Amino acid sequence: MSTYIAPVRDMRFVMTELADLDALSSLPGFEEATPELADAVLEEAARFATEVLAPLNKTGDAQGARLTDGGVIAADGFAQAYRQFAEGGWTGLGGDPEFGGQGLPELLHAAAVEMWNSSNMAFALCPLLNAGATEALRHHGSDDLKQRYLPKLVSGAWTGTMNLTEPQAGSDLAAVRTKAVPEGDHYRLHGQKIFITWGDHDMTDNVIHLVLARTPDAPEGVRGISLFLVPKFLPNADGSPGQRNDVHCVSLEHKLGIHASPTCVMSFGDKEGAIGYLVGQENKGLAHMFTMMNEARQKVGIQGLAIAERAYQQARDYAKERVQGRLAASRTGGAVAIIQHPDVRRMLLTMKSQIEAMRAFAYVMAADMDRAHRHPDAAERALRQARVDLLIPVVKGWCTELGVDIASLGVQVHGGMGFIEETGACQYLRDARIAPIYEGTTGIQAADLVGRKLASDGGAAMSALLAEMRSVAQELERNADARLAPMAPAFAASVQALEDVTKWMCSAASTHVDEALASSVDFLMMTGYVCGGWQMARAALIASANEGAGEDQAFHRTKLATARFYMEKILPKTHALREMILRGAAGAMDIGIEQF
Amino acid sequence: MSTYIAPVRDMRFVMTELADLDALSSLPGFEEATPELADAVLEEAARFATEVLAPLNKTGDAQGARLTDGGVIAADGFAQAYRQFAEGGWTGLGGDPEFGGQGLPELLHAAAVEMWNSSNMAFALCPLLNAGATEALRHHGSDDLKQRYLPKLVSGAWTGTMNLTEPQAGSDLAAVRTKAVPEGDHYRLHGQKIFITWGDHDMTDNVIHLVLARTPDAPEGVRGISLFLVPKFLPNADGSPGQRNDVHCVSLEHKLGIHASPTCVMSFGDKEGAIGYLVGQENKGLAHMFTMMNEARQKVGIQGLAIAERAYQQARDYAKERVQGRLAASRTGGAVAIIQHPDVRRMLLTMKSQIEAMRAFAYVMAADMDRAHRHPDAAERALRQARVDLLIPVVKGWCTELGVDIASLGVQVHGGMGFIEETGACQYLRDARIAPIYEGTTGIQAADLVGRKLASDGGAAMSALLAEMRSVAQELERNADARLAPMAPAFAASVQALEDVTKWMCSAASTHVDEALASSVDFLMMTGYVCGGWQMARAALIASANEGAGEDQAFHRTKLATARFYMEKILPKTHALREMILRGAAGAMDIGIEQF
Repeated sequence: MSTYIAPVRDMRFVMTELADLDALSSLPGFEEATPELADAVLEEAARFATEVLAPLNKTGDAQGARLTDGGVIAADGFAQAYRQFAEGGWTGLGGDPEFGGQGLPELLHAAAVEMWNSSNMAFALCPLLNAGATEALRHHGSDDLKQRYLPKLVSGAWTGTMNLTEPQAGSDLAAVRTKAVPEGDHYRLHGQKIFITWGDHDMTDNVIHLVLARTPDAPEGVRGISLFLVPKFLPNADGSPGQRNDVHCVSLEHKLGIHASPTCVMSFGDKEGAIGYLVGQENKGLAHMFTMMNEARQKVGIQGLAIAERAYQQARDYAKERVQGRLAASRTGGAVAIIQHPDVRRMLLTMKSQIEAMRAFAYVMAADMDRAHRHPDAAERALRQARVDLLIPVVKGWCTELGVDIASLGVQVHGGMGFIEETGACQYLRDARIAPIYEGTTGIQAADLVGRKLASDGGAAMSALLAEMRSVAQELERNADARLAPMAPAFAASVQALEDVTKWMCSAASTHVDEALASSVDFLMMTGYVCGGWQMARAALIASANEGAGEDQAFHRTKLATARFYMEKILPKTHALREMILRGAAGAMDIGIEQF
Repeated sequence: MSTYIAPVRDMRFVMTELADLDALSSLPGFEEATPELADAVLEEAARFATEVLAPLNKTGDAQGARLTDGGVIAADGFAQAYRQFAEGGWTGLGGDPEFGGQGLPELLHAAAVEMWNSSNMAFALCPLLNAGATEALRHHGSDDLKQRYLPKLVSGAWTGTMNLTEPQAGSDLAAVRTKAVPEGDHYRLHGQKIFITWGDHDMTDNVIHLVLARTPDAPEGVRGISLFLVPKFLPNADGSPGQRNDVHCVSLEHKLGIHASPTCVMSFGDKEGAIGYLVGQENKGLAHMFTMMNEARQKVGIQGLAIAERAYQQARDYAKERVQGRLAASRTGGAVAIIQHPDVRRMLLTMKSQIEAMRAFAYVMAADMDRAHRHPDAAERALRQARVDLLIPVVKGWCTELGVDIASLGVQVHGGMGFIEETGACQYLRDARIAPIYEGTTGIQAADLVGRKLASDGGAAMSALLAEMRSVAQELERNADARLAPMAPAFAASVQALEDVTKWMCSAASTHVDEALASSVDFLMMTGYVCGGWQMARAALIASANEGAGEDQAFHRTKLATARFYMEKILPKTHALREMILRGAAGAMDIGIEQF
């Protein structure tokens, strides 16, 4: 198995050149996020990922988390790594400075999240969920709850979880049945939650659950769901963990991947009822959770990117080492490293070019999230927020679907060795497979994109995006660098295709919603490919303008090469998707259930 | 987990209507293969697959094969199932009647192979490899070897294996190093082979290895490889297993899938040398193995189809049962089974339509293999053989790649439950992942297609194929059934695209072989999609002509619906592939190794 080395050079390029970190650090609250600080954070995070997290990835997969009478035990080494992680300040990277966080931009956080997930996705899920719980509490918790819990969650002394799913309530949270009965200043919760990531463990001395439940007289459906904070141990007055609460992990799922991340069935109130505290307003629980939906979905999208990067590094290193077969173009030579074989190059470049496109797209969206929060100009904030709302489902859906495809290609590059667990390549495929499912399946993301986001502003956000893309296509076309102009027609054609399909989709969404939904994943994927092309086109323009010498030149020339590959070999997929969508989906909807 | 039910109705349709079983049974040697017999075989095989093999699939996956001091022990129940399999005559279905086989057509064998692999792919690998070894021996073994071993292999009393790969010799068999030193009437073999499927087990009392090795003075490379038969136990004069030979399984691989199929590291000659017998001519071993290459590759292609069918049945049954969410088109109703949601329909129809296309294509090719062997007219035999040679790499590559995609979609249909091993959906993905790798990776199939098959006859076989496809497109267009004509433009356009790309590929293969190879997998996949469209178009024409009433009508109308979906939602992929190929691959070949 190869060693994970964080792609710091490309991360820095994307942050500085495509996401304009410089401008970002001039926003109020981000004054400290200078490029110098960003460099230092990247280097330190890269070191931590390579030295501490990566070595635990394979052992964690083999051993998994275990449920004992005393609760869940994390895989060997994880508890110590988590302490180091917390001590290094990594749990509070994006956290509120008021509660001990560093308040750094999402853009910088995105790069760190990529590294944690590349090096050890099972581990990285714990801080990922913690960040979501922390934000929910920060936005909606009472001052008392915030003072009591946030410092511990931000510092990583305790971890937070999200308890949403129940057996009958997967994608449809309206069906949540867990009960919360008021009792003095708190509630007693009874019910069962499933698929609770890091729902219990021995890495910290407390676990704080955010739980969706219904109060006794709550209305049915989504309007009767409230959010509660349920600690594993009720804190004493001095903040130390006190009485054991009536919430327990009763079993762990046996999963395809992310074995070291315990996926818990959590039972609330087997005895007297689990003590919980209302977070925010009664019956507004779903809305409170949705406050952090964009952040959570963006981070899962980055997981897709991260596992793809890890799979690529492993496949590339293997392809450079493995000697097998002679070159077809010169049958007389000796055996060569398989990276020289054209089909292996196709696979590696398919991986690499899409990884770079995903990174650029996901990071630029992270910076847009920062601008939506912090820009002093309200109009600019609204513009950025509209784009974030529109495109986060695409970051989530497109990057996680590509994550699976790319991890699968990584297996293929290895040939027979790829199928052997010892090699490590198939763990990435197993781990990657969850990302298009949790935090809303690709179908849910696509329904959100087509059913809500696209039409919510009369298509204004999409029109603005298309206009920006068209102007990038024109820049490419007019550029004097002979390496750029040939990229223009492919990119421009993909933008035009997206525009055609957007019109169809807006019309279908209002007249034939079923047909729109039946093509919604195709539309989401198409949007992703074109957004990736947009960022690769921008990257190519900058690489040409800044070509430089030495290492810079090598980096920029490679960027021009991967951009070219993306335009020639990836973007054509948009033509297929265009045709698939424009043909409509009456054929899929007319079939009777008995015909399947 | 749902129960596997063999899709006998569709199998019969494909065999009878698309592959013309009636005409096949008039060929010399196939007189007994009447449609009535075929029906009986299908029903009996379906029963065996459902009742005996399917129940062992999940338990075999969980337990796996184990290596003990006494050799490899198959998972619980496998040995008994194998005895029943042999007693039922299934090992000799396609075998030579001279040695106890039933000599039935490959077409019928294909359906049985699909059922074995749908119900239990790990089990099915044992007879699959046995059939290959049997055929190699039948074609090239001496009379003495044939008399001694073939009856036992055909009856299933013993099993045969193929020992090709060595650590340094994966796809490149020229690098084989195992030594065979002559000693009297036999040879002594020394060396190590890896990835030996069912290389040892306790299901039969002997295992017969066919082994590639080099004699002492053999020339280097592929022209110095000979084929040897190495029994685990040397047979006594009465045919019973006698002295233990010096060949042993020294370890088992820990794999992503097919856990119940032992993948052995085989050591030959740790002590005095393993006794082996030359099969065929010295230094012709590779050519002898390649005699059965089409059969072996065709069967692995059918594995891709089979695992896709199994994944589809599981996903469909789950989608009919799982109630979640309301219909977007009527938000006021109650929760519905997820099969009613448009995006779930898209996934299920993407699975089903491609499965039907693969089945039709793979079975029609099996019938062509039969005609290539048995047709009384030499010109017809040559024509069929040319088509088989051209398209078997496509059956293997396209069906196994789709097998992975479809098994992955099957996981997705389940949402979170798909990631839980208990559900069963992810086993199909794990099992499916090996098929595009072994028996020649997709890249190797594509290199064979582009580098050898396409050009070997000046493109005649491809031209004949394209002409046949065009005439089917015209039939669609001219048909009076209003359901057919709309399919014509999509299919005709895909045929045209394949023709364009074929021209480019033939030219590139002779002038820029690296660029041709860099697009060869795209070309293989495109050929597969268009061949699938060709058979779905034929199926639609027949379904319209034979529509009938009652169950027949229901079946034929569903076929028209899946054909429509295939034309509208699958065939557009060919436009993307066309563009990807025609843009050339200079961009992939110009990149330096250090740039990856």
